[in-house]
Amino acid sequence: MHLLRTLHDMRGWQHLEKGAGRSIGFVPTMGYLHEGHLTLCQRARAENDRVVASIFVNPLQFGPSEDLSRYPRDEAGDLLRLEAVGVDAVFLPLPEQMYPPGFSTTVEVADLTDTLCGGNRPGHFRGVTTVVSTLFHLVGPDRAYFGLKDYQQWLVIRRMVRDLAMEVEIIGVPTVREPDGLAMSSRNAYLSPQARKAARVLSRALSEARALFEAGERSPLALRNQLLEVLGREPMADAEYAEVVDAETLTPPASGRPFLLALAVRIQGTRLIDNMVLEPSS
Amino acid sequence: MHLLRTLHDMRGWQHLEKGAGRSIGFVPTMGYLHEGHLTLCQRARAENDRVVASIFVNPLQFGPSEDLSRYPRDEAGDLLRLEAVGVDAVFLPLPEQMYPPGFSTTVEVADLTDTLCGGNRPGHFRGVTTVVSTLFHLVGPDRAYFGLKDYQQWLVIRRMVRDLAMEVEIIGVPTVREPDGLAMSSRNAYLSPQARKAARVLSRALSEARALFEAGERSPLALRNQLLEVLGREPMADAEYAEVVDAETLTPPASGRPFLLALAVRIQGTRLIDNMVLEPSS
Repeated sequence: MHLLRTLHDMRGWQHLEKGAGRSIGFVPTMGYLHEGHLTLCQRARAENDRVVASIFVNPLQFGPSEDLSRYPRDEAGDLLRLEAVGVDAVFLPLPEQMYPPGFSTTVEVADLTDTLCGGNRPGHFRGVTTVVSTLFHLVGPDRAYFGLKDYQQWLVIRRMVRDLAMEVEIIGVPTVREPDGLAMSSRNAYLSPQARKAARVLSRALSEARALFEAGERSPLALRNQLLEVLGREPMADAEYAEVVDAETLTPPASGRPFLLALAVRIQGTRLIDNMVLEPSS
Repeated sequence: MHLLRTLHDMRGWQHLEKGAGRSIGFVPTMGYLHEGHLTLCQRARAENDRVVASIFVNPLQFGPSEDLSRYPRDEAGDLLRLEAVGVDAVFLPLPEQMYPPGFSTTVEVADLTDTLCGGNRPGHFRGVTTVVSTLFHLVGPDRAYFGLKDYQQWLVIRRMVRDLAMEVEIIGVPTVREPDGLAMSSRNAYLSPQARKAARVLSRALSEARALFEAGERSPLALRNQLLEVLGREPMADAEYAEVVDAETLTPPASGRPFLLALAVRIQGTRLIDNMVLEPSS
């Protein structure tokens, strides 16, 4: 497995592989890898000649009061995990390379970023689209893989790629969960045993709202109330948002269109998100 | 010469040429081509295996009260001119292809765009960087050519390319002028014979400020006053700005660094720009 620590090395690897006519699958990450990330790598492995993962804790996508400085890191462990799933190269740039002096360019998607995590984390998606754009230029992937746990991020990146005519296929991969339903996340490492137990409330709320939907309920308001009701039963859970929106536009849903149920919940200060798409045919 | 009218055709051409290992030089234009544009094409012709020009009057870079609807067009004449200088392909997309329904992404450079044309045309450079970014993805050029008449645009695009790690060399080509000194511009077509004569004041102001500089004057304020003094002598000239700034950062200049003299002047409603760089060694 190649370790690429500079922009120059990353570009060189890209040129070599593309020059040889090989397809590149790309998995951008912030490290501290879990089964969710490794599932993305396995999917990339199956669909491309070469797989590159990046590990970059992107300062641009953290707000001033967020957890940038204490975001968990484990480079040695991450490299072992990536090697085990057959990743060919890992790109590990330093922030001062990605954001050199005088850096002043941003890539921004409007509308889709106004709501949910975008509404609660101003500038977050601008940081994401800017860094992903830069990474795409450096890596030159044919396909890039994103976890659907970050559903809004996947929509936003898909929109950016379409709008700016970037030639990369954006693939959303279903959320990987712990046995008790908790969506895998690097931030789960912050949870105390008690908070870890309370965190099950996110997937439970989604399941109970789905049960209601499957029983015939089609009112977004009733589904949202169900989410809030289940979250309300967990004293440690502090809901940042619980929304039912159109799964394509993230605006108020129209009947007959897929619904997105989306949650952001703080458990003892740790911000967790989860979501579920409900198809009208189901 | 290939006429490429869809994004699909443009991408297909790019793949064919790159697949064959050929380098691509790119000249983005808004059409109504003059000697300035053709000089860019000739330079691209000399430095690349293939040359592609685009003709796209980009609505995003025009303000609501600007001249989008009456911007001059001459597609047939443009194609003859491009063919005559050996351009291999012309990309002529429609606005509805470049900006499909739901389009909501922008690429923006801060700081460099706060002043000069950026200060007077809000959103203009955001429109430029967004469309140039999209065009770069579609064309995949090794080198792209921009006229230095639009000096600030050249700086902004260079910054964007560096920041987002786009793999294209940005080449600034010296302004081409009419025999009497007027910088070539598609907007010169708007000028009445009387206004055309008055328009010589821009290059004259720059020349007189340079003469002062060459005589030893190093005060930005004195040079700026010289610009304003010459512009003031022409009753038809209405200065939008006349500035002396650092030629790299566009901020107030420090001694020993190259100065940019930059002008935007309205002559009977037609907005003309021109500039000159003064090197401290000269």
